[in-house]
Amino acid sequence: MKLLPKVGKYEFVAEPFHCDFSHHIFIGHLGNAMLNAADYHSNDRGYGMTYLNPIHKTWVLSRFAIEMDEMPMAYDKFSIETWVESAMKFFTSRNFAVVSPEGKVYGYGKSIWAMIDTDSRQPTDILAIHDGLIGDYIDKEKPCPIKASSRVKMGEDAELVRTIDTYYNDVDVNGHINSVKYIEHVLDLFDLDFYKHHFLKRIDIAYVAETYQGDKLSFYVEEEPCKEMNENLHTAYNIRVIKTTQNEGKDVEVVRISAIFVKK
Amino acid sequence: MKLLPKVGKYEFVAEPFHCDFSHHIFIGHLGNAMLNAADYHSNDRGYGMTYLNPIHKTWVLSRFAIEMDEMPMAYDKFSIETWVESAMKFFTSRNFAVVSPEGKVYGYGKSIWAMIDTDSRQPTDILAIHDGLIGDYIDKEKPCPIKASSRVKMGEDAELVRTIDTYYNDVDVNGHINSVKYIEHVLDLFDLDFYKHHFLKRIDIAYVAETYQGDKLSFYVEEEPCKEMNENLHTAYNIRVIKTTQNEGKDVEVVRISAIFVKK
Repeated sequence: MKLLPKVGKYEFVAEPFHCDFSHHIFIGHLGNAMLNAADYHSNDRGYGMTYLNPIHKTWVLSRFAIEMDEMPMAYDKFSIETWVESAMKFFTSRNFAVVSPEGKVYGYGKSIWAMIDTDSRQPTDILAIHDGLIGDYIDKEKPCPIKASSRVKMGEDAELVRTIDTYYNDVDVNGHINSVKYIEHVLDLFDLDFYKHHFLKRIDIAYVAETYQGDKLSFYVEEEPCKEMNENLHTAYNIRVIKTTQNEGKDVEVVRISAIFVKK
Repeated sequence: MKLLPKVGKYEFVAEPFHCDFSHHIFIGHLGNAMLNAADYHSNDRGYGMTYLNPIHKTWVLSRFAIEMDEMPMAYDKFSIETWVESAMKFFTSRNFAVVSPEGKVYGYGKSIWAMIDTDSRQPTDILAIHDGLIGDYIDKEKPCPIKASSRVKMGEDAELVRTIDTYYNDVDVNGHINSVKYIEHVLDLFDLDFYKHHFLKRIDIAYVAETYQGDKLSFYVEEEPCKEMNENLHTAYNIRVIKTTQNEGKDVEVVRISAIFVKK
């Protein structure tokens, strides 16, 4: 079987009605474009959802980080390059680059995925798919010069700032809350005025549990001194998202996010 | 100056992460694709936002109707055709057709637009732009065989079913709540289970006033006997959306919507 190139490249346009008040694409739309590119890349290479779903398996996003120098503006064409950096039995890492037609890099993404059995919801062996076919597509050479996505450490002082309901439009093709919707709901914790003075430099998300339509999501936020960047120029927030399911007593952590903003 | 074809045709893909649990594109994404197509079409022909905004004018959507036989599914390519059906001093009507690469029509849209002066927020003369250039692009021949968008008549019995806040992600390039977000918020009034048994056949929206981030939106809903369609197969809802602006006493109607669902 002939192998495709290791790196897949997919074209997008920053459609004007996918852009915010500042005429830059919403990070939610950019994040979904990355997930779409990941889906195209894995389908084209034989280990995507269109192959996996009929055999009762699917990809599950475990960690996702996006770090941007600049966001595409309304009408800009851009490409998302994506490739697999590593693959083990239970986890694979996939990188992204967001690139202009002239080759300017807007930013990068890093993600970690598990594969689960959709009947048991338990992890399943990634390397068992087509005799480890994914291994033939690992590209360790292409640079993705941002910090790896790591678990967000939170203190004890995070405050509950909002509780929301989840609705029809939050649910994606997998039947649970879309991974990128958590990003949108977190960014909605800050008002328009905040975005006039702050640029979202980096966002890190660790996905812990799945959420279904009807669950309530509570957002606990703490501001943290931004150790690794310049404190005068950056503001960092850690956010813990807890779900409450109707008729179930226990609250469960579903997502943990860190967001680093640069002052404009 | 050489004229372009009257009908513009723009290509889209039903990206999998723009699709709902049933693997069909969200109507919100389809609606935004229509608005994007309208924007491309008018910009290409010299009377779009990129020409108007620097001269302190802009298009404002006044009415919008979408009627679908079927929705594109994940990975489907589709085109949106759009053209101007009529243009008068203060209003122009623009039609849409959603078409598969093989020429199958998924559905149609109809819209009415005003042009305003962005300083005074008052209506301004559409025919004054480039000496009535838009008149050269009127196409009365191309069929758009759905009922014109009309004002939704509501009874006195509509019940308040939800009040929501508006956030950063609700605001579009024009600085106010995105026209299509009202559709999404209205469709979120129905839960996932409802969509397992109902297909949104038609939605009509009359835009009455603009909303800004921070305004609260209240949704008043009444079910109405569906006169023009088969009552056994259809369920129709009328929804009035009222905004409450902080520090302003008066509640104002901003949008009125009718949604007709077909039982699956």
